[in-house]
Amino acid sequence: MHLSEITHPNQLHGLSIHQLKQIARQIREKHLETVAATGGHLGPGLGVVELTLGLYQTLDLDRDKVIWDVGHQAYPHKMITGRYNTFNTLRQKDGVAGYLKRCESKFDHFGAGHASTSISAALGMALARDLKGEKFKVAAVIGDGALTGGMALEAINHAGHLPKTNLLVVLNDNEMSISPNVGALSRHLNKMRLSPPMQFLTDNLEEQFKQLPFVGNSLSPELNRLKEGMKRLAVPKVGAVFEELGFTYMGPIDGHNLEELIATFQHAHKQPGPVLVHVVTTKGKGYAIAEQDQVGYHAQNPFNLATGKPLPSNKPKPPGYSKVFAHTLTKLAENNPKIVGITAAMATGTGLDKLQAKLPKQYIDVGIAEQHAVTLAAGLACEGMRPVCAIYSTFLQRAYDQIIHDVCIQNLPVFFCLDRAGIVGADGPTHQGMYDIAYLRCIPNMVLMAPKDEGELQRMIVTGVEYTDGPIAMRYPRGNGYGVPLMEEGWEPLPIGKGEILRHGDDVLLLGYGSMVHPALQTAEILHEHGIEATVVNARFAKPLDTELIVPLAKQIGRVVTLEEGCIMGGFGSAVAESLLEHGVAVPLTRIGIPDILVDHAKPDESKADLGLMPAQMADRVLQLFSSQPAIIG
Amino acid sequence: MHLSEITHPNQLHGLSIHQLKQIARQIREKHLETVAATGGHLGPGLGVVELTLGLYQTLDLDRDKVIWDVGHQAYPHKMITGRYNTFNTLRQKDGVAGYLKRCESKFDHFGAGHASTSISAALGMALARDLKGEKFKVAAVIGDGALTGGMALEAINHAGHLPKTNLLVVLNDNEMSISPNVGALSRHLNKMRLSPPMQFLTDNLEEQFKQLPFVGNSLSPELNRLKEGMKRLAVPKVGAVFEELGFTYMGPIDGHNLEELIATFQHAHKQPGPVLVHVVTTKGKGYAIAEQDQVGYHAQNPFNLATGKPLPSNKPKPPGYSKVFAHTLTKLAENNPKIVGITAAMATGTGLDKLQAKLPKQYIDVGIAEQHAVTLAAGLACEGMRPVCAIYSTFLQRAYDQIIHDVCIQNLPVFFCLDRAGIVGADGPTHQGMYDIAYLRCIPNMVLMAPKDEGELQRMIVTGVEYTDGPIAMRYPRGNGYGVPLMEEGWEPLPIGKGEILRHGDDVLLLGYGSMVHPALQTAEILHEHGIEATVVNARFAKPLDTELIVPLAKQIGRVVTLEEGCIMGGFGSAVAESLLEHGVAVPLTRIGIPDILVDHAKPDESKADLGLMPAQMADRVLQLFSSQPAIIG
Repeated sequence: MHLSEITHPNQLHGLSIHQLKQIARQIREKHLETVAATGGHLGPGLGVVELTLGLYQTLDLDRDKVIWDVGHQAYPHKMITGRYNTFNTLRQKDGVAGYLKRCESKFDHFGAGHASTSISAALGMALARDLKGEKFKVAAVIGDGALTGGMALEAINHAGHLPKTNLLVVLNDNEMSISPNVGALSRHLNKMRLSPPMQFLTDNLEEQFKQLPFVGNSLSPELNRLKEGMKRLAVPKVGAVFEELGFTYMGPIDGHNLEELIATFQHAHKQPGPVLVHVVTTKGKGYAIAEQDQVGYHAQNPFNLATGKPLPSNKPKPPGYSKVFAHTLTKLAENNPKIVGITAAMATGTGLDKLQAKLPKQYIDVGIAEQHAVTLAAGLACEGMRPVCAIYSTFLQRAYDQIIHDVCIQNLPVFFCLDRAGIVGADGPTHQGMYDIAYLRCIPNMVLMAPKDEGELQRMIVTGVEYTDGPIAMRYPRGNGYGVPLMEEGWEPLPIGKGEILRHGDDVLLLGYGSMVHPALQTAEILHEHGIEATVVNARFAKPLDTELIVPLAKQIGRVVTLEEGCIMGGFGSAVAESLLEHGVAVPLTRIGIPDILVDHAKPDESKADLGLMPAQMADRVLQLFSSQPAIIG
Repeated sequence: MHLSEITHPNQLHGLSIHQLKQIARQIREKHLETVAATGGHLGPGLGVVELTLGLYQTLDLDRDKVIWDVGHQAYPHKMITGRYNTFNTLRQKDGVAGYLKRCESKFDHFGAGHASTSISAALGMALARDLKGEKFKVAAVIGDGALTGGMALEAINHAGHLPKTNLLVVLNDNEMSISPNVGALSRHLNKMRLSPPMQFLTDNLEEQFKQLPFVGNSLSPELNRLKEGMKRLAVPKVGAVFEELGFTYMGPIDGHNLEELIATFQHAHKQPGPVLVHVVTTKGKGYAIAEQDQVGYHAQNPFNLATGKPLPSNKPKPPGYSKVFAHTLTKLAENNPKIVGITAAMATGTGLDKLQAKLPKQYIDVGIAEQHAVTLAAGLACEGMRPVCAIYSTFLQRAYDQIIHDVCIQNLPVFFCLDRAGIVGADGPTHQGMYDIAYLRCIPNMVLMAPKDEGELQRMIVTGVEYTDGPIAMRYPRGNGYGVPLMEEGWEPLPIGKGEILRHGDDVLLLGYGSMVHPALQTAEILHEHGIEATVVNARFAKPLDTELIVPLAKQIGRVVTLEEGCIMGGFGSAVAESLLEHGVAVPLTRIGIPDILVDHAKPDESKADLGLMPAQMADRVLQLFSSQPAIIG
């Protein structure tokens, strides 16, 4: 049987180990070939091919449910649940999503793009099943990296307290989140991997017994019985954490050995209550290049399969925002020992690995634990340090209460650097950085800023580091800058709450924020061709808003358009609306940004075109205003 | 020495155990006397009197730092850090706060009102200390209830990975959060408490050895050595979770035995790396009534010290929102087995204990674990259940990403019921329910509603339960309703996104949301006395906003005022501003609500008066508009 013939995972049931191995090989081929062409997550999927096949062979997928944590490990799952033939559209607009999606397949029981949610969701389904008196199996597959996220531990704590609720948790232990794991739990897992439990303790005990003078080389039945008793006593050392938390622990087992996987899962399904199967896998398994560089090949842009090298780009690109951020922060940190960069398992993504390499003491990776990261930063700030929390816009959502309760209420100078703010592209709705302006703006004491380009990013980094009056957050987009000149040192901080006028015109006021400032200028150029002259303002700060600049301009010009790469409900445009009305300036205002909808995966420019955020589209929208709306001069 | 003479905790250093016991008695007296008069947290503080004194006697509080989790257990700390003489102002306006506050005392190193933050903050301070090359001790005191919060576990996981970072965690184990604890970790702690480690295992081993035929009644030195080895092997069973997570574990010890506490803390301070001291305390210790009803006396309104009974109220009050909520939901759940009420350790506060008593299967308490609560609800919703997440507005902040990522992106019908939305009174800034409209409004698919009174609350509960198109959230305030008629059954759901006109007038449009609708009516009455006639609209929904109703009215009346009990940045008024401008209706709009500041503890009406939210103040504000701003008829 060929993989392409599998349209339902239950077709795996009849297959022999030999046939499953063939399927595994075909999955790896398709996986590699697709990701090399489209880009996407490489290492995670390759690591769980046998885990997926083994687990699914022991389940009835018409009834049973598997919840995949994060979802970037679920490409093999996608290929055997009816998406083999469309898999080459991976992460492309209207194609197969890079994460699980309930609307994409009935086998995607719970969508996820962020880590640590699967056990909670699975437990909810298991409780519902029991309430309804139904019978099916529920399994969550979670990586050891995701286990450092507090909510996974909350869920384990809850599930372990429910001995009558059948639930299988498969721990996919590859010693990595995206970067190598941090944390004591990870060390605990390492210890388990390195010293298979029973064996070690039994040997050790036997050795000790034999050293007793009256025992000698053979153990009496009584001593043997004692030894067994001891073993039982001592077993909790391995798997202790899970056993003590109420789970039946099984493992560690070889995650690439189909026989062992199937036998263990079959055994696990027979246990009542919560069961944890500890599966050890190799990230990138079967592709030597990825096995050797597990961090680099966690996810990839399109690459050459033979060499593993990225496909050559057509033209050289300006440096990315993350790179400029990391470089500038590291330069500043060299001269300021108070700066401490904090990441939540995103060292490479945020660029903080550069800081780590240069100044390891001024770098902290807390693992996937954003809540802890933010309150840890608050603690550092209490002691006069300059904590810089580099967390993607979408992931900072995970620490919302900590931002309010620990940082802003106490007015502590923590500098939040929100990478991937705005449209993120192929990662889709779970990763869009579209809510941060709205969710941060409503918190007292918070300052919000966004640079128009990578040069201003440098100045805002200095601004953030030097601002000690309270919390301050900077958002910047995914991707490359504009190629503007960069400085190696001597950056000037910006005045807090002050914008700048970039272009003068009497017909319309375009207020751009962050990544939408250059597009605002382009829009103004197009308008100019139509005889409309725009004033363009780089707002720089969404909070405090530069009302001294904006309000008189709005009054004078009488027609205002705001442009932002974020949700327009409660965002920058909303701040402008509030401010104008507060100042009694009732002029027509058009807010351009992300409307109140989810934004699916696609190339960033494709998404922007769908949302009407391309300069030509925005110019059209402004032109329409002139046909429909009179300006009101205040 | 009398407690009143202690103005600095280091004064404890010279005191004998006898003297410390006297101080302990005086703390309890003052504690009881004060809380009986002012109301406040009773059980938590009484439980940690000896713990506080014992810990502080072993520290130099001019250098060392103690971080109290939640802070409601820190009344004894307040009394010995210079606040004895003002302690009778507890939780009163301008008086001593009910939680810790950095601005209140230099000994309040980290403020907290929400649980589970202390270890993160303490670790941040410890890391800063080491980076700066300073030397002082940092201790976090955390209740076992707070340990179920994921971020506490994230912090333990991180701290346990840093063997060179000295940090003391004192686990105040009283088997309770506010209600009895849930979760496997709690059961693990129970087990520890019930079987003191060394003793049990040693006895057990000795017994087993003695049963060996060649050993008899006395142990040889070799067997003794073996026994010791066994003990070492077996010790991890108790404290296993913490030891495996990298902590040196000490305990459990009697939290009311000063000698044992002091000796243990002194020993703990000598250990390198992270240390956890497990202290068993009795909530309410020393006040028999509170020891016997630990849930009821966690916190109290003013009460009679002799009887423990609440002071008689001057007049009978209408039922509270929480009570009406619980009663109505329970009635509905009796006829709808799909309804499942979920609380995060707030059974009594939310009123869900009523549901638990009547329909225990349709009730889930996950402990202090809001993230897990929300995603668990999402899992239940996937299976067709009707999960009702009853979480205070302020605590729902802790599950923000789960609301976005697990509920709203998947458009799952979870019904969020946000109690304590708006001004909460004596609990102060950490507990104000002021951000929810803003932080929920920006999420696609979310519906937001708020009832004008307890009668409408009943209808909105039915509305929420019957709405299955996606997520829906209802906010309602702390305190009592208006005494409007309630129904025992037959409630009609409200049409989604539709408001109602309550009063007609041509001069100004007052748009009230939730708890500000009745005040809007009162404001209209005052305006009427001044010859100004207001139209008053009960908006009911902040999202979707009833633009069909609001926009024409705004156009026609030409002057709009919004009224809400929430932050005005991004809130309901902002929604109205956005909507009017989107529809090209540029009329003056005044947003009344909580401005961009923190709101300190005080009586709710005192806070509202400070914020200008009393009807007379709002009427004044509207009258001023008439002197300064012309209406603009669209």
